[in-house]
Amino acid sequence: MRVGVLTGGGDCPGLNAVIRAVVRKGVQVYGYEFVGFRSGWRGPLEGDTIALDVQAVRGILPRGGTILGSSRTNPTKVEGGIERIKDNLAGLGVDALIAIGGEDTLGVAARLHEAGVNVVGVPKTIDNDLSATDYTFGFDTAVNIAMEAIDRLHTTAESHHRALICEVMGRHAGWIALHAGMAAGANVILIPEKPFDIDKVVEYVESRFKTRYAPIIVVAEGAHPAEGQMELQTGELDAFGHVRLGGMGQRLADEIEKRTGKEARCTVLGHIQRGGTPTAFDRVLATRFGLHAIDAVHDGDYGKMVGLAGTEIHRVGLSAATDTLKTVPVERYAEAEVFFG
Amino acid sequence: MRVGVLTGGGDCPGLNAVIRAVVRKGVQVYGYEFVGFRSGWRGPLEGDTIALDVQAVRGILPRGGTILGSSRTNPTKVEGGIERIKDNLAGLGVDALIAIGGEDTLGVAARLHEAGVNVVGVPKTIDNDLSATDYTFGFDTAVNIAMEAIDRLHTTAESHHRALICEVMGRHAGWIALHAGMAAGANVILIPEKPFDIDKVVEYVESRFKTRYAPIIVVAEGAHPAEGQMELQTGELDAFGHVRLGGMGQRLADEIEKRTGKEARCTVLGHIQRGGTPTAFDRVLATRFGLHAIDAVHDGDYGKMVGLAGTEIHRVGLSAATDTLKTVPVERYAEAEVFFG
Amino acid sequence: MRVGVLTGGGDCPGLNAVIRAVVRKGVQVYGYEFVGFRSGWRGPLEGDTIALDVQAVRGILPRGGTILGSSRTNPTKVEGGIERIKDNLAGLGVDALIAIGGEDTLGVAARLHEAGVNVVGVPKTIDNDLSATDYTFGFDTAVNIAMEAIDRLHTTAESHHRALICEVMGRHAGWIALHAGMAAGANVILIPEKPFDIDKVVEYVESRFKTRYAPIIVVAEGAHPAEGQMELQTGELDAFGHVRLGGMGQRLADEIEKRTGKEARCTVLGHIQRGGTPTAFDRVLATRFGLHAIDAVHDGDYGKMVGLAGTEIHRVGLSAATDTLKTVPVERYAEAEVFFG
Amino acid sequence: MRVGVLTGGGDCPGLNAVIRAVVRKGVQVYGYEFVGFRSGWRGPLEGDTIALDVQAVRGILPRGGTILGSSRTNPTKVEGGIERIKDNLAGLGVDALIAIGGEDTLGVAARLHEAGVNVVGVPKTIDNDLSATDYTFGFDTAVNIAMEAIDRLHTTAESHHRALICEVMGRHAGWIALHAGMAAGANVILIPEKPFDIDKVVEYVESRFKTRYAPIIVVAEGAHPAEGQMELQTGELDAFGHVRLGGMGQRLADEIEKRTGKEARCTVLGHIQRGGTPTAFDRVLATRFGLHAIDAVHDGDYGKMVGLAGTEIHRVGLSAATDTLKTVPVERYAEAEVFFG
Repeated sequence: MRVGVLTGGGDCPGLNAVIRAVVRKGVQVYGYEFVGFRSGWRGPLEGDTIALDVQAVRGILPRGGTILGSSRTNPTKVEGGIERIKDNLAGLGVDALIAIGGEDTLGVAARLHEAGVNVVGVPKTIDNDLSATDYTFGFDTAVNIAMEAIDRLHTTAESHHRALICEVMGRHAGWIALHAGMAAGANVILIPEKPFDIDKVVEYVESRFKTRYAPIIVVAEGAHPAEGQMELQTGELDAFGHVRLGGMGQRLADEIEKRTGKEARCTVLGHIQRGGTPTAFDRVLATRFGLHAIDAVHDGDYGKMVGLAGTEIHRVGLSAATDTLKTVPVERYAEAEVFFG
Repeated sequence: MRVGVLTGGGDCPGLNAVIRAVVRKGVQVYGYEFVGFRSGWRGPLEGDTIALDVQAVRGILPRGGTILGSSRTNPTKVEGGIERIKDNLAGLGVDALIAIGGEDTLGVAARLHEAGVNVVGVPKTIDNDLSATDYTFGFDTAVNIAMEAIDRLHTTAESHHRALICEVMGRHAGWIALHAGMAAGANVILIPEKPFDIDKVVEYVESRFKTRYAPIIVVAEGAHPAEGQMELQTGELDAFGHVRLGGMGQRLADEIEKRTGKEARCTVLGHIQRGGTPTAFDRVLATRFGLHAIDAVHDGDYGKMVGLAGTEIHRVGLSAATDTLKTVPVERYAEAEVFFG
Repeated sequence: MRVGVLTGGGDCPGLNAVIRAVVRKGVQVYGYEFVGFRSGWRGPLEGDTIALDVQAVRGILPRGGTILGSSRTNPTKVEGGIERIKDNLAGLGVDALIAIGGEDTLGVAARLHEAGVNVVGVPKTIDNDLSATDYTFGFDTAVNIAMEAIDRLHTTAESHHRALICEVMGRHAGWIALHAGMAAGANVILIPEKPFDIDKVVEYVESRFKTRYAPIIVVAEGAHPAEGQMELQTGELDAFGHVRLGGMGQRLADEIEKRTGKEARCTVLGHIQRGGTPTAFDRVLATRFGLHAIDAVHDGDYGKMVGLAGTEIHRVGLSAATDTLKTVPVERYAEAEVFFG
Repeated sequence: MRVGVLTGGGDCPGLNAVIRAVVRKGVQVYGYEFVGFRSGWRGPLEGDTIALDVQAVRGILPRGGTILGSSRTNPTKVEGGIERIKDNLAGLGVDALIAIGGEDTLGVAARLHEAGVNVVGVPKTIDNDLSATDYTFGFDTAVNIAMEAIDRLHTTAESHHRALICEVMGRHAGWIALHAGMAAGANVILIPEKPFDIDKVVEYVESRFKTRYAPIIVVAEGAHPAEGQMELQTGELDAFGHVRLGGMGQRLADEIEKRTGKEARCTVLGHIQRGGTPTAFDRVLATRFGLHAIDAVHDGDYGKMVGLAGTEIHRVGLSAATDTLKTVPVERYAEAEVFFG
């Protein structure tokens, strides 16, 4: 039995832990051979492989990134892409494929499975916005990095009368903002799921200025004001009519300065949220995902992806992961709102 | 409405986060007053209280320990203890009591509830061995601390031919050893649930010495050898006939040195596993436990404790927490065994 | 003997460690009393004080910020400011004053000393740009925070073809950029002391894209291109004709994207560099500064500030700290350049 | 020009940073070739080499340990050892040798230099006890690890009435205990340089029990009681008549329990102090040592080792490092004593 492995999409702490678990159990327990595909779907598309054995996965558990490399190549958008992959897999004698990735990667996996390829998926997104799993690995690491940064901002907020804004990842879902903001005691948390009222935000900020403590605002990069607010210039809008991604934190700082006459400073965490060594939670989750993914291969249970339900790893249909985005429900946001202001 | 709050048993990162959430929501949303009881059950037993309002809980979210103090005082073992507590609560005008603690603390809470006191429990144990909740807060912090220590041991293990033993907490359940060992890539994990075979452990150690890497063994303080092994002296046995707690790591190091002729070094993490700032996971879990505990008070839903089920907080009967110890199941240990040797 | 203490200027990890050491040794060894002045020079100017005794400094050693608060109030710019301070000190029976702060704070201290006040200074600047001391506390903490962030960026840089820019503090001196960049293996480090050649930077970036690794550029907020480069708009220039502070990182990212056609992403660390718990180096240095400052008071050696020379604490004239800015010398930058590209 | 490099003695964070700097500057600036010797002096003794070029040192800067491996092999204790090394170096065409290590390693280097080999030394000891340099790399990392552990112990010390002992490294010099204890606010610090009075230690412990806080004692592994105290058994004494190394912490805990009737718990940090990624201070120092060591080779300035003096790297005779142990001076210990009790 030869099993191919690939990692697609953006970086995520824990990818190497999945790869290691797949290979260790596959080789040692099931006696499989492995083929590593380089750079996501570009690997099987172009037949670009690297050796993947027990020696290759030694020491990678604590390391961020992916030893296989990644890309956003989408073979369904390449003329004859699916067929080329099937041919390459056949040519390399690959009997089954484990695809580790997010919505896009797993969407391709679902298409390949329909086309007759033996695929098992492992869900991955730092944003935690995939359905059919309680958590995705990488999310806990990102939340801890953001929390530690916000913890540090509290020191300054306590000593100076400044509004401090921390922009975190989350284009379509506010999970990182919600958890990091709740964990670090933010005074306001803004998420894409709920357009914010700038008047209310400014009101929170000004009420904080009356106490000894200055306000800390955590804002997901995809958060945006309610319609008609904050007089946006055309260049600041993206295709969806939202504020251009990656700029909401600074935009908000400017608006708060203008309205309150007090300094507002913005920290943009950016890629540091997805780099570095994974937390224990993510290493354990990723390792267990890997163990159960190779079990699914051993069971011949294809077209599935693994997921976390409570403390158990289960299997769900590949499409379940990609059908709906898991966004922050109203009641979870309401929990955090208790601490606003 | 006046609500009393106490924390019992050993230290656990996240206690302050629970207290803060209870008070913030209680005061701001429900308009309650609070009474803080000092030093666990000793507080209500002796009527020892401290002020507990929004100001008192400011800034405590990231801090380990408990602003209320703790103790192991058990009023059920004190003549007329339950009655004295009832009298003191009545005298202070306390309508409901939130008890945050482990098996012992919640056991007393159950007894008080039977005696007519309005009690809500919040489960706490760094060892994660309480039933009726997927996880307890403090556990994730302990696991990360242990994992980081073991990560550091790998460096030395790679450069010198030594067996390195790391003793972690876990008297009756091996959750910390399992998760930290799995997260940090330990070569052997020894837990109380499964008496170990010293011959097998030595075999793993010796096989590692043949490779470039030296072995790292994670051992829960309550782990012990199979009957008849390691010729224990009487003084080394506790009341259960197990090796005296806190000494298994060094005991194992000595045995490995004796049998392999190679150096073996032991690190005993001890109390550093339960101190310091909580991880994001523990802060969010503790905060949510607090919010839902005060909701239970508001609902008049007494005799319950809050618990985590998947991503949801639910309520279960107080006795559910104390009836059975949640130990590591065979199949979870089997997942880790894939990486042994 | 009554001794006043104040902290002026921006936040800096280690301020509380200084205050604690001053008070502990002053009370326990010399039998002094203390008066805490609130919010920097605003405290003595307005007679705004807080109690400062051994109890007040308990537990503050590991905490960032300052229990005395801070401000940028400059009494030399206030009509009759110096006289009002002298009157307030006399009224409060303050015999000597310990001023902890940067260039501005120590400049005022020098003026007060000339006016007959018994002043001892403790140098503070996160930027490490004060003369007469090898290092200032807070600097080591900032460098470690920046280094850890850059470490994390490496993960992404290894997996994707993106230029990653990390903007760190340093308006007039590039010490944080130099040390953090050298510690974290940056491919280019840009500092205020040496206007950069954007063509050369782009050349480094493009040469990296040819290897497996993408480039990481560390840029001090006060770094700027050589004259005539990067076609700046008027609004982007500050009073010195430099690029507006706080925006150089993003400005550079835009320029690199435009010139290379490859994505460039910017992380702005901002205030997280000056918050949170100090490193061991900073805690020991700050503690020793505090001990030696109160010794200077005891010796009646006023008009001096403490400084680090090798491993020893010495005393220098207050003006020595403020006369010249300590910038990165050419030969130290040359050491880092070995690793560029 | 071919330059050999080796690392001898115990692990130390920063070794890889030295190797990387030596090779990067050697190859890129001076055009040298390199030969890596495996496992300390065993490498040149047995002619055991590995490839050492720019590719080999990529990515090693943040990694603990040493890519060259290490050992305690001492060729001066091997019949004809020095001659065999000379022959092997000649056979491999090695023109100069950079030896990175502690007292023993540099002692051999001095002997080789006398025997006509072109040697440059780089001092290394986690204990910071080498003369002729203000600090050695690895020390700052060890101190921070110990400080973080002690920080965590404070949480428990605040909540429970227990004496907490933390045993840190330091056989002959108490630098780690002094710095970590001072940084983390230990109540007592015990170092090898000053035999402790157990009555005085117990007095501190008991006075703390009267306050809200319990005592934290930091003890270097080589600390020992004054003569005639603590009734040592023969088996507990080493060749110097001191308490056997590695056991002082637990020994002290037992004694305190016996004398005070209060619980005392011991944490033994062991090898976690010398593993893992180096701090910024150690990475910068190690990198600068490497750059200046290869400069010394380029200058033909052999028989020297590099050292830190203030903020400058200088060169001193190899014997200077090994002639006298740098122990904690009385006045530095006196600074810490201010905070005892």
